[in-house]
Amino acid sequence: MKLIVTVMPKNGVLDPQGKAIEHALGTLGFEGVGEVRTGKVIELELAGSDPAAAKAQAEEMARKLLANTVIESFRVELA
Amino acid sequence: MKLIVTVMPKNGVLDPQGKAIEHALGTLGFEGVGEVRTGKVIELELAGSDPAAAKAQAEEMARKLLANTVIESFRVELA
Repeated sequence: MKLIVTVMPKNGVLDPQGKAIEHALGTLGFEGVGEVRTGKVIELELAGSDPAAAKAQAEEMARKLLANTVIESFRVELA
Repeated sequence: MKLIVTVMPKNGVLDPQGKAIEHALGTLGFEGVGEVRTGKVIELELAGSDPAAAKAQAEEMARKLLANTVIESFRVELA
């Protein structure tokens, strides 16, 4: 079963990479670009056939390893 | 209009960060973990009200700046 964990900086946490992209897009001539935020995406292949159990397991992985929950939030989706 | 650009390494391209996560999850006692791949996610706020135009613009941004299309593939979604 394939799951996608998306980890983003929480609101209010500085995101210098996002700011750099925002600036670079302006330099390249793209107009109307507002806020840009960057995060990580982790695609996991998990054994088992119960979607709810797999999702719960991926959420535990995110809390324990994939995300720093002090400054990052995460969401888990089935792919 | 908010768009999400997800950039992943292409199949066959090494992903050492994914391998490290795979190993770390095993060490933490998680079982049944198969392949792990990591990528980037970029959330963009774009002006305009035409979803198709915004998506086309984000795809151009991905080709020109956000993704290295030699080794990475990307997908664009409306948030």
